Amino acid sequence: MTKFNVLILGNASASPTLTRNQTSQLINIGEQYYLMDCGEGTQIRLREHKVKIQRINHIFISHLHGDHYLGLIGLIQTMHLLGRTSELTIYCPGDIKQIVDVHLKISESHLKYPIVYKTVNSENSELVYENDKIEVISIPLKHRIACSGYLFKEKQKPRRINPKALKTFEVPKYQINKIKLGEDYIAENGEIIKNMRLTLDSLPSFSYAFCSDTKYLESIIPIIKGVDLLYHESTFADEHADRARKTYHSTAKQAAEIALKSEAKKLIIGHFSNRYADLNVLLTEAKTVFENTEIATQGNTFEVSFSQ
Amino acid sequence: MTKFNVLILGNASASPTLTRNQTSQLINIGEQYYLMDCGEGTQIRLREHKVKIQRINHIFISHLHGDHYLGLIGLIQTMHLLGRTSELTIYCPGDIKQIVDVHLKISESHLKYPIVYKTVNSENSELVYENDKIEVISIPLKHRIACSGYLFKEKQKPRRINPKALKTFEVPKYQINKIKLGEDYIAENGEIIKNMRLTLDSLPSFSYAFCSDTKYLESIIPIIKGVDLLYHESTFADEHADRARKTYHSTAKQAAEIALKSEAKKLIIGHFSNRYADLNVLLTEAKTVFENTEIATQGNTFEVSFSQ
Repeated sequence: MTKFNVLILGNASASPTLTRNQTSQLINIGEQYYLMDCGEGTQIRLREHKVKIQRINHIFISHLHGDHYLGLIGLIQTMHLLGRTSELTIYCPGDIKQIVDVHLKISESHLKYPIVYKTVNSENSELVYENDKIEVISIPLKHRIACSGYLFKEKQKPRRINPKALKTFEVPKYQINKIKLGEDYIAENGEIIKNMRLTLDSLPSFSYAFCSDTKYLESIIPIIKGVDLLYHESTFADEHADRARKTYHSTAKQAAEIALKSEAKKLIIGHFSNRYADLNVLLTEAKTVFENTEIATQGNTFEVSFSQ
Repeated sequence: MTKFNVLILGNASASPTLTRNQTSQLINIGEQYYLMDCGEGTQIRLREHKVKIQRINHIFISHLHGDHYLGLIGLIQTMHLLGRTSELTIYCPGDIKQIVDVHLKISESHLKYPIVYKTVNSENSELVYENDKIEVISIPLKHRIACSGYLFKEKQKPRRINPKALKTFEVPKYQINKIKLGEDYIAENGEIIKNMRLTLDSLPSFSYAFCSDTKYLESIIPIIKGVDLLYHESTFADEHADRARKTYHSTAKQAAEIALKSEAKKLIIGHFSNRYADLNVLLTEAKTVFENTEIATQGNTFEVSFSQ
């Protein structure tokens, strides 16, 4: 089973508190690290969880409000101080390059590693990154400035070798790699053994969607349809629905509506206004709409491949 | 006695650790707050110490390396979110305005309060701020980029009323304010009673010098001569003196040399390289030169008016 999980490094909105850092998450897919947002203090939280920061090669920023990116400059500089040479790619719908550049220029810092900037289209969903195992798709959100969520999807996995079938058809060892790649096997007597008969169904592919910050937005639904784990911002409780609407944020119930309508398997809620000392208010409201909801508690790791 | 103390909010250099934030100090002089440097996470440390951040009206930045200012943008934004309307003044030898402006522009933030920027001369010592009680003087330092320390000095305090003398000379109550202001008293019989005879010596005035980051620099000495409390960076131990020289930093011994030669009453050392898990190495080295040295431990408050 490929590892696929999400470590919550912060779940506060606007201002940090003593127990809630601002938004940041570390997504681990098969020991490849992807950093999702980078609020102030993220590098300290990474250190707390003993994450080797040089293994982060891709940083996704949802939007350029301070609570989602103010830890980025410090992280970039620490990567440099610790001797990084490998490329770092930053995905963002806004001009993060201009911000990083002014810091580097004025502090007279010359990074030893290259940064690649990818401007994310926040109007139309698009493929922003892929490798042979996963793809990352932008989720246009509706906030006060250009803002994008991200859908991390494992690609279709290869079918698995069926050792019993290999034995039955006396497949020689040197043929196994070809079969793994999907080829049929031609037996010595000329008989063609279809690949399907030699292999088992592939393991399921999982997906994780990060949606913050946004007002209630149904155009998200077709993009994330059937997602295994959905993180959706829940800045406010129902009693502050009006405040949510005005500030382009969501209530816990609205997050749950999106989870329900997109047929997500599970919902985690975060980006809490620090007016709520007790987050159970938000959890309870979400659960009235979508039962399988949890709070994105800072320091918790959520398994995306949970159904296995 | 006027309160005059320094709360250490961080003492790390370069990168923060779990127990050491980057440089920041809160200077309290008679319940007026002055923030000295603002490393990443400073707003969280201020919150931890229950400091009312809106009472900070003056922020002094030594130089624009990330470990001394990266918490500033978040602090500015939190001040805004919490409804600040009063002016904030930022003193800095570099172009901090350019940095703040690009963040505000790109995040489309419109602060409700004005920021005044004062460019500090990092070549020549100058008065950078004064009110009726204190003055703040820049201390040109020698680092890799423009860098300034700051000397916080209480002004000469007024002489104190001597109640016994007032009684002896039968001074009427309505004359007391004039005597407080330094006037003589003319008795009913025409005799002039000199102010000196009606008053006691004024309480002593204290001073605090902040010197970070800098290589060993004797030109500091005449500026801070006789200072009550000196904070001097001590990034390295003696064994890394060469590294200190190359990076324009000081060793603990060099900090102590400056304390000794400037006849400081007390030295606190900080800005430690995080290669030192045990800071006693640095303390011991400093003490061989200047006995009255302490580590600027994060969370500690140091009294400047300690001799009373």
